Amino acid sequence: MERVVIDQIASWEGQQVELRGWLYNKRSSGKLHFLQLRDGTGVIQCVVFRDEVTPEVFAQCDHLGQESSLRVRGEVRRDVRSPLGFELSVRGVEVLQAAEGYPISPKEHGVAFLMEQRHLWLRSARPHAVLRVRAEVLRACRDYMDRGGFTPIDAPIFTPAACEGTSTLFETEYFDQKAYLTQSGQLYMEAAAMAFGRVYCLGPTFRAEKSKTRRHLTEFWMIEPEMAFCELAEDMDVAEGLVFHVVQWVLERCKSELRTLERDLAPLEKVRLPFPRISYDQALAQLKEKGSDIEWGQDLGGDDETLLSFGYDSPVLVHRYPAQVKAFYMKGDSQDSRLALCVDMLAPEGYGEIVGGGQREDQLEVLEAKIAAHGLPREAFAWYLDLRRYGSVPHAGFGMGIERVVAWLCGLHHVRETIPFPRTMLQLYP
Amino acid sequence: MERVVIDQIASWEGQQVELRGWLYNKRSSGKLHFLQLRDGTGVIQCVVFRDEVTPEVFAQCDHLGQESSLRVRGEVRRDVRSPLGFELSVRGVEVLQAAEGYPISPKEHGVAFLMEQRHLWLRSARPHAVLRVRAEVLRACRDYMDRGGFTPIDAPIFTPAACEGTSTLFETEYFDQKAYLTQSGQLYMEAAAMAFGRVYCLGPTFRAEKSKTRRHLTEFWMIEPEMAFCELAEDMDVAEGLVFHVVQWVLERCKSELRTLERDLAPLEKVRLPFPRISYDQALAQLKEKGSDIEWGQDLGGDDETLLSFGYDSPVLVHRYPAQVKAFYMKGDSQDSRLALCVDMLAPEGYGEIVGGGQREDQLEVLEAKIAAHGLPREAFAWYLDLRRYGSVPHAGFGMGIERVVAWLCGLHHVRETIPFPRTMLQLYP
Repeated sequence: MERVVIDQIASWEGQQVELRGWLYNKRSSGKLHFLQLRDGTGVIQCVVFRDEVTPEVFAQCDHLGQESSLRVRGEVRRDVRSPLGFELSVRGVEVLQAAEGYPISPKEHGVAFLMEQRHLWLRSARPHAVLRVRAEVLRACRDYMDRGGFTPIDAPIFTPAACEGTSTLFETEYFDQKAYLTQSGQLYMEAAAMAFGRVYCLGPTFRAEKSKTRRHLTEFWMIEPEMAFCELAEDMDVAEGLVFHVVQWVLERCKSELRTLERDLAPLEKVRLPFPRISYDQALAQLKEKGSDIEWGQDLGGDDETLLSFGYDSPVLVHRYPAQVKAFYMKGDSQDSRLALCVDMLAPEGYGEIVGGGQREDQLEVLEAKIAAHGLPREAFAWYLDLRRYGSVPHAGFGMGIERVVAWLCGLHHVRETIPFPRTMLQLYP
Repeated sequence: MERVVIDQIASWEGQQVELRGWLYNKRSSGKLHFLQLRDGTGVIQCVVFRDEVTPEVFAQCDHLGQESSLRVRGEVRRDVRSPLGFELSVRGVEVLQAAEGYPISPKEHGVAFLMEQRHLWLRSARPHAVLRVRAEVLRACRDYMDRGGFTPIDAPIFTPAACEGTSTLFETEYFDQKAYLTQSGQLYMEAAAMAFGRVYCLGPTFRAEKSKTRRHLTEFWMIEPEMAFCELAEDMDVAEGLVFHVVQWVLERCKSELRTLERDLAPLEKVRLPFPRISYDQALAQLKEKGSDIEWGQDLGGDDETLLSFGYDSPVLVHRYPAQVKAFYMKGDSQDSRLALCVDMLAPEGYGEIVGGGQREDQLEVLEAKIAAHGLPREAFAWYLDLRRYGSVPHAGFGMGIERVVAWLCGLHHVRETIPFPRTMLQLYP
């Protein structure tokens, strides 16, 4: 008998198949059991009629606990009432393991409890849907990069020095020296861009932030494209192109997941190219009009970002922040020396910053002065300075946070639900 | 004028274009300069005739150092003698930055020196070719997994406990506790397989091995598929299918890179499905016949693997090793309790183990006993045991080392050349 997975069931209408999975839910009446079977690809209703199976099988179904593992044989029947469109008319059930006392019942549980049970919670409909969206976001990112002629180049995780200050770095003994876990692959991508033209990395990055906000994880994934011969305007083009591609890809491929999550699709469908682009100065004017007391020279806070994003249907690009709030490697604006040629992209609906990037300082002397002014160890950046010594070119890039994008697309309050095994200041288990 | 990249040059024959890149090499005669320009996508010969440019441009080309960054304008001409098939007949050259004293000249350098200059060495033809092959290996892996219905699930990097002993773990302070860098995503993939059916992770893993062999890095990338309702035989099918797909993919897409590396294609073209499968006992008999003094119960050493692989054109699968040399989570062989239902795949030409995996112990009591027998902390594995408590099913998976596969396909002696920024016991820079 053919072994079939649930998301392929439509091809087997009218035929006898074997499904293998876990009991997700169950209803019974006198001579009927309705078993909801999940196999990781979908959920199907299996109808067990007392008259169509052996008395032993029917009795066994009476006592089956949630998450018992089963092999179920039967006939695939069209059923217009089910979300799947099909059900299984059962002829036989084999119990591989009868589970008892599964801790996550269909009733409500607190998030803290569920996070402790993350290894099991993944089986529930909502986390399952979120992680399928995450998988498609990652696929969409790679697809966009492939089409754009980018070469994937893996950044190292162990780094000998801090890129943006040491206070939020995880440190480890590395034989007879210290190593730090990377906070960004950017500096390495700059080296790779000079070798490959257009590159990107997509991997985990780390930040030891003593922060319990809903937007922070200690371990999070970023995609970081970097382009040689690229200035700020083109950098913004690529960033908005990537984000737009991801939104369209997920809208096309994740309809049922977004339905499971009860995500309102209207705001996502309103996202349009080109995205609005405003300068920091314009952003400040808008914020003051809306009642913010932000002063020129300050970075935008989370509340400012939320306030600003509510004015737009699409993500908004805010460019040319004061150099004083940005990292040392940002190129200065030749039109106004107080500004950096940088950009942040704020997601709609208050989801905050999803992209940060800009043009990199490409002049050796200027970069050397900035490293000194920031009090950074020159030796650690010797190789980085080499990139300005040998064939320096205008170049730019950005980082997009995978978890924040997934949180936005899924309409989730907290990023911890967007990664399979979240790591926060309070969570290192399972 | 159209800005063009070199690997698209064929579409621009007879037209005026602008190329942007770096001077890779140069030859001059009295009234001619031949500039080899690279832009990350390829290398093209740019011919500068004294009579076709201004005297200033011609004179400037006289003194251009290697890796100077340039904008070059000219006409695309067919040239059957060049590997690319085209050359550029130059009308103008703009020097963005004149580089002097580039440390990696076309002459020979030692590997230690080149590794210190890795941020620049990436621009040279060989490392560039190797990393393009790496990029295609990663694409081939994801493509195979996508077609097979696998969901990508990112494993955590921070783990609360050791999976296979603590001696080779990197440790870090994690707020008020200790965390370890993952050596394998497998245990987490087992949890995910019960939720998604078929899953894989592809990311960095870490091993603090005080080993200076040519097959070891402290930071290396693995793809780790895991499948619910899967036993050893099917696990081997998927592993050989993946490896075969990767080989074909690279043979199709990386012809010019493999030519740059002077890789003999014949051994790769001889790889055929199905791969030979032999038991550990059969492997031992072969090894003894070839003069090895290995005894039953010992793991295969590097030399044994090399000796064995020379007997086959395709990778060889060695299954059912003695349980005593394998990890605690391996399922025992019901036919012979001394054996584990595991498999290693050895690459041809002496490239050693590229895949390791097998069926996982799925019985709660047996697994509990094994954890106790191995002296592992039971609390740390409480969640892992839950997978056997609630709907346990036969399941299996494997890990494939990306760097070892790239080393084999490229015909490289040392894995450190197969990753953009290698990390070894001796190297943490750049």
